[in-house]
Amino acid sequence: MAKGDRTWINARLATLDPRLPGLGIVENAAVAVRDGRILFAGPTADLSSAELAGAETIDCEGRWVTPGLIDCHTHLVHAGNRAREFEMRLAGVSYEEIARAGGGIVSSVANVRTASEADLVRESLPRLDALLAEGVTTVEIKSGYGLTVVDEIKMLRAARRLGEARDIAVATTYLGAHVTPAEYKGRNGDFLSDVVLPGLEAAHAEGLVDAVDGFCEGIAFSPDDMRRVLDAAGKLGLPVKLHVDQLSNLHGAALAASYGALSADHLEYTDEAGAVAMARAGTVAVLLPGAFYFIRETQKPPVEWLRKHGTHIALATDCNPGTSPLTSPLFAMNMGATLFALTVEECIAGFTREAARALGRLADIGTLETGKAGDLALWDIGEPAELVYRIGFNPLSARIRAGRDATL
Amino acid sequence: MAKGDRTWINARLATLDPRLPGLGIVENAAVAVRDGRILFAGPTADLSSAELAGAETIDCEGRWVTPGLIDCHTHLVHAGNRAREFEMRLAGVSYEEIARAGGGIVSSVANVRTASEADLVRESLPRLDALLAEGVTTVEIKSGYGLTVVDEIKMLRAARRLGEARDIAVATTYLGAHVTPAEYKGRNGDFLSDVVLPGLEAAHAEGLVDAVDGFCEGIAFSPDDMRRVLDAAGKLGLPVKLHVDQLSNLHGAALAASYGALSADHLEYTDEAGAVAMARAGTVAVLLPGAFYFIRETQKPPVEWLRKHGTHIALATDCNPGTSPLTSPLFAMNMGATLFALTVEECIAGFTREAARALGRLADIGTLETGKAGDLALWDIGEPAELVYRIGFNPLSARIRAGRDATL
Ligand SMILES: [Zn+2]
Ligand SMILES: [Zn+2]
Repeated sequence: MAKGDRTWINARLATLDPRLPGLGIVENAAVAVRDGRILFAGPTADLSSAELAGAETIDCEGRWVTPGLIDCHTHLVHAGNRAREFEMRLAGVSYEEIARAGGGIVSSVANVRTASEADLVRESLPRLDALLAEGVTTVEIKSGYGLTVVDEIKMLRAARRLGEARDIAVATTYLGAHVTPAEYKGRNGDFLSDVVLPGLEAAHAEGLVDAVDGFCEGIAFSPDDMRRVLDAAGKLGLPVKLHVDQLSNLHGAALAASYGALSADHLEYTDEAGAVAMARAGTVAVLLPGAFYFIRETQKPPVEWLRKHGTHIALATDCNPGTSPLTSPLFAMNMGATLFALTVEECIAGFTREAARALGRLADIGTLETGKAGDLALWDIGEPAELVYRIGFNPLSARIRAGRDATL
Repeated sequence: MAKGDRTWINARLATLDPRLPGLGIVENAAVAVRDGRILFAGPTADLSSAELAGAETIDCEGRWVTPGLIDCHTHLVHAGNRAREFEMRLAGVSYEEIARAGGGIVSSVANVRTASEADLVRESLPRLDALLAEGVTTVEIKSGYGLTVVDEIKMLRAARRLGEARDIAVATTYLGAHVTPAEYKGRNGDFLSDVVLPGLEAAHAEGLVDAVDGFCEGIAFSPDDMRRVLDAAGKLGLPVKLHVDQLSNLHGAALAASYGALSADHLEYTDEAGAVAMARAGTVAVLLPGAFYFIRETQKPPVEWLRKHGTHIALATDCNPGTSPLTSPLFAMNMGATLFALTVEECIAGFTREAARALGRLADIGTLETGKAGDLALWDIGEPAELVYRIGFNPLSARIRAGRDATL
């Protein structure tokens, strides 16, 4: 009996299987995992004795089982925090004064540059552990606070090491084009030529890049800047995604779609044409209610247009020190429902199936289907809606990776 | 050496001592607890050898110590949840249809009535444990879903039993006048005469009532209804508090103040005169951002007026199944800051000193001062603002009750 060869019986499944309606619910169900992969997920009545044989059997006592959660957009690796700046802002200090006092993203960049790779791992582990405690089995982590070749690579190495320190899959995203550092102020083109593009090649050569991202916004990079990054990623055969339309409509969603991006993220100002383009390209809309909430935005992403045109919708924490110091996927789901009026089904799919799609990993994770990774979350709940409804309450009963218990 | 005779050294204190500015911060500090009470809280340099002698010494390694958190407004004891209703609402089902399907507060009342006292304890414990996990050492719990004499008393007994099941102080509040049950529809006066007032006397006779509350609102009870309840409480010598001005301005804040209420809670529609009256009466303004957030309110409580007139401001979770299924004081603090623009100091004071004041227990708890209960929370943070800034992250290192470790 191989480690992790187990069968969970007496379960209720939210399979997220797209062939089933809604959450793909199966009552009186079982899940069998063999060699780390799902061998069976469905009604107990359909479970053959062959599938039960030779494996440890676990009685779920009616608990719900979902795919392990997937947080598909985070800046989890960073150093320091911006609590002081948050406090100053609440005390009435202006953004300008905070910036003069060294606050803002500049402080995160300075902190990452002075931190060692080990520092980044040590500081980021408690944040990662908060995600694990809520059933996350795959997390995406971006670079983007280093903004030198060396420091971007340091961030991505730290992200990879987090995946070794804990039983979790880490998807790394190169976000060299996150913001222009002070030394390149007003010279985006030079920054791209000197740092972002060479950094991408160097990081890719080390096998550190699962996808390439950029921040397309008036305060960051123009669509033309973005094209240089996207073209470079294409030449390396790397999938792309973009931060778009968060604060204004630069038609970033359509740009991302035109490059066949895995996802376009934020999308508060995306217009209907953007939603259509994304649907056609299969580009997932990753909504980030934590940032919307934390920076007190009022413009909401165009959920109705996304639905109307069949654009896939994912949700993520956007965990980052400046605009979303959020490490709770469950709370992100509640904010998706409360702030963006997403349905329970959209919220749960947004942290499972659609998050897997946004990472280009839907063939491997994100649903309870035969052949996929045995990554599960078990929940002490009466119905799936409780995952979205409650605030600040964690009903996780077990986190399973490749069939094995993986509480941390 | 008595159990719980301990001295914490190498600490940083947010004492909330009103004689000190802001959070009452003391660096390089120590706290000594003897016989369950704080013997010393201040600079290590002022700690005498007598105060160190004969006690276990604990090195805090620079961790922060605050008073144990106090959640001064909850409906934590209830049965069932309203996740299904939440899901229906998001799916576009109208309030009317939900009500016809048995949803709304009616369902919570039905669930409490059919539950036994033991059921209520068992169902409420996980919610209580969520509060404990964030450092809560005193919690207020209201009745109000029974709405018969027997069922209101059952709720209050369950609340008391929670205080025996866990190492936490429970303050019980009789909220018979929460909502008019179906059998008394349109007959508030009869409901008060038949149930609320006799129930109050019966519950008080059992020692189950630490304070008396009512819901003054168009959809609940009028100011005149409230006067009957407040007068009855006064005759029994019980302190009072009121839910007021949440959905409309019935001048409930001024009404509460005119009765010398410990607190008036919600206050979204309170006017400046209400803020003035509360300040004069010493009635604490208990703000409940969880309900504001969850029901998507837009009218914010008059924080500027409360500040201008020196009204004390507390914060609470309002944990309840219908409008605030929130069990995270830390997240309530973040919502206080993000949604109501409270400062870090106001948020932390709101869950410590001001919450103690709202319960009439400021002489006993709520600050780190000599003579008060040795109820502490130890935090793995660099500065107090982190308690408010982060979302969905719990840095609690230890929860101390009367000097003893009390993790659960
Ligand atoms: Zn981001
Ligand atoms: Zn309430």
